[in-house]
Amino acid sequence: MASLLGNLFILAAPSGAGKSSLIKALMEKYASNSDNAMEVSVSHTTRKPRPGEVDGQHYHFVSREQFEALIEQGVFFEWAEVFGNYYGTSRVTIEQTLHRGIDVFLDIDWQGARQVQKLMPDTCGIFILPPSIEVLEQRLTNRGQDSDEVIAGRMKEAVAEMSHFSEFSHVIVNDDFATALNDLEAIVISQRLRTMKQQMRYQPLLDELLGSA
Amino acid sequence: MASLLGNLFILAAPSGAGKSSLIKALMEKYASNSDNAMEVSVSHTTRKPRPGEVDGQHYHFVSREQFEALIEQGVFFEWAEVFGNYYGTSRVTIEQTLHRGIDVFLDIDWQGARQVQKLMPDTCGIFILPPSIEVLEQRLTNRGQDSDEVIAGRMKEAVAEMSHFSEFSHVIVNDDFATALNDLEAIVISQRLRTMKQQMRYQPLLDELLGSA
Repeated sequence: MASLLGNLFILAAPSGAGKSSLIKALMEKYASNSDNAMEVSVSHTTRKPRPGEVDGQHYHFVSREQFEALIEQGVFFEWAEVFGNYYGTSRVTIEQTLHRGIDVFLDIDWQGARQVQKLMPDTCGIFILPPSIEVLEQRLTNRGQDSDEVIAGRMKEAVAEMSHFSEFSHVIVNDDFATALNDLEAIVISQRLRTMKQQMRYQPLLDELLGSA
Repeated sequence: MASLLGNLFILAAPSGAGKSSLIKALMEKYASNSDNAMEVSVSHTTRKPRPGEVDGQHYHFVSREQFEALIEQGVFFEWAEVFGNYYGTSRVTIEQTLHRGIDVFLDIDWQGARQVQKLMPDTCGIFILPPSIEVLEQRLTNRGQDSDEVIAGRMKEAVAEMSHFSEFSHVIVNDDFATALNDLEAIVISQRLRTMKQQMRYQPLLDELLGSA
């Protein structure tokens, strides 16, 4: 993948760690910055759009037949069937975006991350952790008026997801939101500054500087 | 070196790329930030202090006998004799600083970088480039009233140094100073967020989060 100018990032976290808010804030900050374009990858799904969901923005909504044809064409990095609906991440779309120099963010779990990292080892994996077990519990409780069992189930799921943190190259502890956002930004900028990426971006400058002895 | 909390950075550049100003600005910015302590490594030398130079700040000034004893003790990462004076970078001092969680910056050339990276592969190498050959020429000329030969010699040296840029993991093009400083900071923050470093920093949190299923 050394020939793609854009960088691929995976963001994983237990629910309650604040991942969605961080991604949203990052995208808003860079929305008008054409030098540093970035996008969250949009998955394909066969489930029906919910009210307010926009095709191509929240999901690429396709039929079962279309989805199965895409599977056969080897378009997906990873796909799964959940409650009778297909969900998948298109490798082709992502590679096209990266090729245009746009950074792509995948909002997936550790299982998806493992599949993507196997296919694209140059991916930067970022895991977001809550600052304490109390804060995590609070965030999982505040979402609604759920029973203790439901909350306990969510906690168990969160711990299961967190147990895979070491499969990611970077870890952000989301204690103070502004600091966590700054951390996320630093990782993104740093990935862009890697020599192989800069070599692509600055080839004319390098030719000029090195050819001038 | 996975057991050292601090990160080791090498900064290399041709003269005229603005490396010293960038390092100075970074140190000033973090001078009062005890959570993110950083230091520029101070070399040992046998040359006499110049007016204004402070022992332990600009150099560790030692005698030839002391220096040779340090060589024998294997204290140095790298050392060289230049115009009859020894210069060396103490591995022991650097490792002690890293062990205390302080990031260390080495301001050295590609040859020193190669030696350090062989001994400490976890080092992050950053190469700084000027934005154009004109700017480089200008910066090398503005330093004094030198003859064309002297300037041509400096240019040749600069090009020789730049030809090793790809031995470094990151490249910063110093066009706009504020952007270049921000880039440097991003690399530093990103290195700190690597999983193995965060695991050391947040072991109690990780125990709490993962032990709570």
